[in-house]
Amino acid sequence: MTIINNQITLAERPQGMPDDNTFEFVKKDVGDVKEGQILIKTLYVSVDPYMRGRMENVESYVEPFKLNEVIDGGSIGEIIESKSDQFKTGDIVTGMFGWQEYYIAGESEVRQIDPSIAPITTNLHILGMTGLTAYFGLLDIGKPKAGETVVISGAAGSVGSIVGQIAKIKGARVVGIAGSDEKVNFLKDELNFDAGINYRTTGNIKADLKHACPDGVDVYYDNVGGEISDAVMTQLNRYARIPVCGAISTYNLEEKDIGPRVQQTLIKKSALMQGFTVGNYSGRFKEGAKQLGQWLQEGKLTYRETIREGFENIPDAFLDLFRGKNIGKLLVKVGERSMNK
Amino acid sequence: MTIINNQITLAERPQGMPDDNTFEFVKKDVGDVKEGQILIKTLYVSVDPYMRGRMENVESYVEPFKLNEVIDGGSIGEIIESKSDQFKTGDIVTGMFGWQEYYIAGESEVRQIDPSIAPITTNLHILGMTGLTAYFGLLDIGKPKAGETVVISGAAGSVGSIVGQIAKIKGARVVGIAGSDEKVNFLKDELNFDAGINYRTTGNIKADLKHACPDGVDVYYDNVGGEISDAVMTQLNRYARIPVCGAISTYNLEEKDIGPRVQQTLIKKSALMQGFTVGNYSGRFKEGAKQLGQWLQEGKLTYRETIREGFENIPDAFLDLFRGKNIGKLLVKVGERSMNK
Repeated sequence: MTIINNQITLAERPQGMPDDNTFEFVKKDVGDVKEGQILIKTLYVSVDPYMRGRMENVESYVEPFKLNEVIDGGSIGEIIESKSDQFKTGDIVTGMFGWQEYYIAGESEVRQIDPSIAPITTNLHILGMTGLTAYFGLLDIGKPKAGETVVISGAAGSVGSIVGQIAKIKGARVVGIAGSDEKVNFLKDELNFDAGINYRTTGNIKADLKHACPDGVDVYYDNVGGEISDAVMTQLNRYARIPVCGAISTYNLEEKDIGPRVQQTLIKKSALMQGFTVGNYSGRFKEGAKQLGQWLQEGKLTYRETIREGFENIPDAFLDLFRGKNIGKLLVKVGERSMNK
Repeated sequence: MTIINNQITLAERPQGMPDDNTFEFVKKDVGDVKEGQILIKTLYVSVDPYMRGRMENVESYVEPFKLNEVIDGGSIGEIIESKSDQFKTGDIVTGMFGWQEYYIAGESEVRQIDPSIAPITTNLHILGMTGLTAYFGLLDIGKPKAGETVVISGAAGSVGSIVGQIAKIKGARVVGIAGSDEKVNFLKDELNFDAGINYRTTGNIKADLKHACPDGVDVYYDNVGGEISDAVMTQLNRYARIPVCGAISTYNLEEKDIGPRVQQTLIKKSALMQGFTVGNYSGRFKEGAKQLGQWLQEGKLTYRETIREGFENIPDAFLDLFRGKNIGKLLVKVGERSMNK
């Protein structure tokens, strides 16, 4: 029996915002499962801002996507055939299976999920790379102390919403910047942030920051770059720390990303900016995952996920990341679990 | 007997480059030396780029100079009258005595110099704040490892020339950026730098950097900011460290300091930028001074100092810092030692 695999490939590298020409839907035979391999049926696909960077043909911390190959990305799937001693049919696993309905994996490419701990989708956000990105960036670089002020941009996004909650656990005053009143209300009402700023409607983000951060900014967790970050940089305290996680405001920019240089501010404030990617901390993933899982089970962390339905909607869900629509983590459900839980 | 004290005060805050209107020469009685105080005759005055920042009326890591008050700064002097048990006439001391011929100091304001260790002027550079700035910025933030590449801007200046030598002691490949062929030759011939780039004559600083740093840049010790730093930022290696010490290219800028934003680079390279001032390390000055003194006595560090003569030439010497004229440390000799050495 031949299984037909629906895939989404990179048809061309986008200039600015990706569109229909960027992606191509193709069909391909799944092929044979060899000894030591497993066949995975995709259940959920993660869409993440950093994937935009991989569409460019430039050197970065992850390899660029190759033209006409399946777009790579984090997913969750169910094993529907196993020629491995380590996995059996019905096991739920996560890994980089890409934007396709099926994937044949080697044993080392997957990590098994225990569905009894939390909904399996949490492994694509709060218990997965997103949670670890929040955890290590904030704690290893930001190092918030009780009573300090932590500002987060992209605060209602998948990473930002976890950063703020961890900062609250550490006793900080937490201020989130986001792009709608709905998001700001989510931060304050559901995540217990101390204040929120809607950058789209504020007439004066500096004044709003001053008001929300009467004692200045000790940690700025930067997910967006651009003018929002320019504004936060004016409010830093001495010895401020800035984990630079993302620059989503600039990923689709066709002109150059130009703004105030930071050197004078860094000197005057003895401030630190450090870029990072979660992979830098791979040796400590277990530590982070264990702590996040514990906080989740203790009710100290919560999350919101938006699940779009249908393989064909993956590209549109991805583009929603840049339209600023979603709150929390955005996933696409691609297949149903075939086994009973 | 009344001693007349020649002083230089801040007459007005400069817009852009300071000029004759910025400074005023005034005469004032020295006054009486009280119990526990010492009267110091100034021998040497240090002129330093950071002093430009203190001429602005903006919050920073050091207080702004006050209008119509003596311009503060590091100096070396000889005690000509002592009402302190700790000091005697003829002692050579250093401290912040400012741009004036005499200064009455309390005991805690001065540090005694042992003239037998090295020429006393070294206490205004390689054995003073300049040396400590180089030492802590490079070693605490830059953390160069043997075999890594360290790039220094403002490399022939007082701080940069020490930074490069310490980086050589640590086994790094050292590349200096400076503003004349004479300076570049000084770096290579006298300080043993591996390569030098004259930013004024290069047609393509990026290409020159690539050539001088075939393995990329691991540490960038930034003294200048602006376009030179923009160029170095394009050549960073993964996990690069950037001690941000100064931004002399921008201190007299009247327009805004605008350039490429750094966030995307920091993320892609997991790079760190950290601003600092030497005062952050005051608790470790003894450690640094001891090590610098040892290296100097072992012949592992050398220096060049340019000594201008005459109190009346202090403002012009200060402006030379921004004209890019001097190599190494720039001092002004204001008085003669009255005692035999």
